[in-house]
Amino acid sequence: MTDTMISSRSTEVVIGFEQPFAVIGERINPTGRKLLAEEMKNGDYSRVEADAVAQVAAGASILDVNAGIPLADEPAILAESIRLVQGVTDVPLCIDSSIVAALEAGLAAYEGKALLNSVTGEEERLEAVLPLVKKYGCAVIAISNDDSGISEDINVRFDVARKIVERAQDFGIPVSDVVVDPLVMPIGAINTAGRQVMELVQRLRSELKVNTTCGASNLSFGLPNRDGLNTAFIAMAIASGMTSAITNPLHAAIMQSVQGANVVMGHDAECANWIAANRDPNVAGRERKGRRGGRRGRG
Amino acid sequence: MTDTMISSRSTEVVIGFEQPFAVIGERINPTGRKLLAEEMKNGDYSRVEADAVAQVAAGASILDVNAGIPLADEPAILAESIRLVQGVTDVPLCIDSSIVAALEAGLAAYEGKALLNSVTGEEERLEAVLPLVKKYGCAVIAISNDDSGISEDINVRFDVARKIVERAQDFGIPVSDVVVDPLVMPIGAINTAGRQVMELVQRLRSELKVNTTCGASNLSFGLPNRDGLNTAFIAMAIASGMTSAITNPLHAAIMQSVQGANVVMGHDAECANWIAANRDPNVAGRERKGRRGGRRGRG
Repeated sequence: MTDTMISSRSTEVVIGFEQPFAVIGERINPTGRKLLAEEMKNGDYSRVEADAVAQVAAGASILDVNAGIPLADEPAILAESIRLVQGVTDVPLCIDSSIVAALEAGLAAYEGKALLNSVTGEEERLEAVLPLVKKYGCAVIAISNDDSGISEDINVRFDVARKIVERAQDFGIPVSDVVVDPLVMPIGAINTAGRQVMELVQRLRSELKVNTTCGASNLSFGLPNRDGLNTAFIAMAIASGMTSAITNPLHAAIMQSVQGANVVMGHDAECANWIAANRDPNVAGRERKGRRGGRRGRG
Repeated sequence: MTDTMISSRSTEVVIGFEQPFAVIGERINPTGRKLLAEEMKNGDYSRVEADAVAQVAAGASILDVNAGIPLADEPAILAESIRLVQGVTDVPLCIDSSIVAALEAGLAAYEGKALLNSVTGEEERLEAVLPLVKKYGCAVIAISNDDSGISEDINVRFDVARKIVERAQDFGIPVSDVVVDPLVMPIGAINTAGRQVMELVQRLRSELKVNTTCGASNLSFGLPNRDGLNTAFIAMAIASGMTSAITNPLHAAIMQSVQGANVVMGHDAECANWIAANRDPNVAGRERKGRRGGRRGRG
């Protein structure tokens, strides 16, 4: 049983084996969003704020914030995005950049214990990022690739994850603060990609005792009806023991799949969240009349 | 690796660890369907035939046929239903009754190797049904309850399954012809019901080497938005190794979840079925023009 606690100023979220699945909202990311990139570069963060509010309303428990805009001052934009997002929502954030200076700027701006996205098994990255994780006392996503790239052999990806966990321990970072991304490959290209993830998640959990995350929508890359496939995949990843994912909470079918998977895993006590989210308003009205003072659902 | 082969006159279907998930259509069952019960009792099988055709069109690979109507001649009605369904569809059938005489009448009427639904661990039932399975060379669904009822302890349910498999072997019935139903309990009443099924399926597969099935919709009994919960559950059951389920193929979300799960399991080679089922008609038209003579999808 491993709990990864992260927090904002006032809210703690625990990613853990016996916790509801943590949805990390992926929308605040200018990659592939030209308009958003342009706005952020010009100091207009209105869409960042709106995306933050909408994702939390849709059920995200953590928000990823990325400011990867070519030729822009990424550290400054990421720090400002984080300050503004923390002003409009209360969920913990995942500070996301490929640039170490941006990660540090984000950590400096952040209030609470962040999730840092990410460290890999690459030597240079390990040496640059792990000291930041230790300095700021945050948690970190560990991606299972290293200087030789991404292996199609899951044993190699597992060994990379173990190396990162061990190296983190050398820096005084507890295992519970490392959340491993086993890497999801496109199943249109690699037929075994789904089973790879399920097997890796089980091993990461039973052998390394770490929490896990992934970019859930990578699986469906290049295929039609990606949401439909992602919806099945995320429930299957949860069944295999995955404890969080970076995905789009604005897709209702995916969120319903996560909520259903929480019920099936026994992580929705008395199915209270499921009942609240799916209650017929008329029935709910009658029920409320009949049982004043009972437990209040979210619906 | 265990393959359970069943057949109609001309079509074989294999339920197996490395096969696409087998959906057993549940609609031809008068339980809770007053109009259908009345019609079947009066010799009107038009709805039975229509339900058969519709379920196969929706993707069922096997059809369950049940004629459990109070105060009716169930053996005769079941046999007639089976003859008529075999006249309008070509998929193998699952002959379903709680009355042994009806099972035998169904088997006598059936052309091919049927799936018999069901035997339990009850002594009387074992002694009555297993000789029929042997005599007709069919496969059989083994439900994990016995004379003491349904246990909430999964170890007891596993032991009942093992007892049935062993008893079947005493009758000369191979393990591959026994498909175990680990019993799905309502999760609104038993919070661990989902994990029970997932754990039992894994054990049944790794220890007893049997294929598995279940009444998938039992899990959501008493809860709102049952289809939504069933959709997540069936993908999770498949991730755990379940190889078939008795469910309603007319629910599009459930069938999409099964198709998606087949992709994730690596049981949809080159994602061909997924692509065919989800192809944008306009894109498909352009693609077809460009690649004459290529593999034909179902779409």
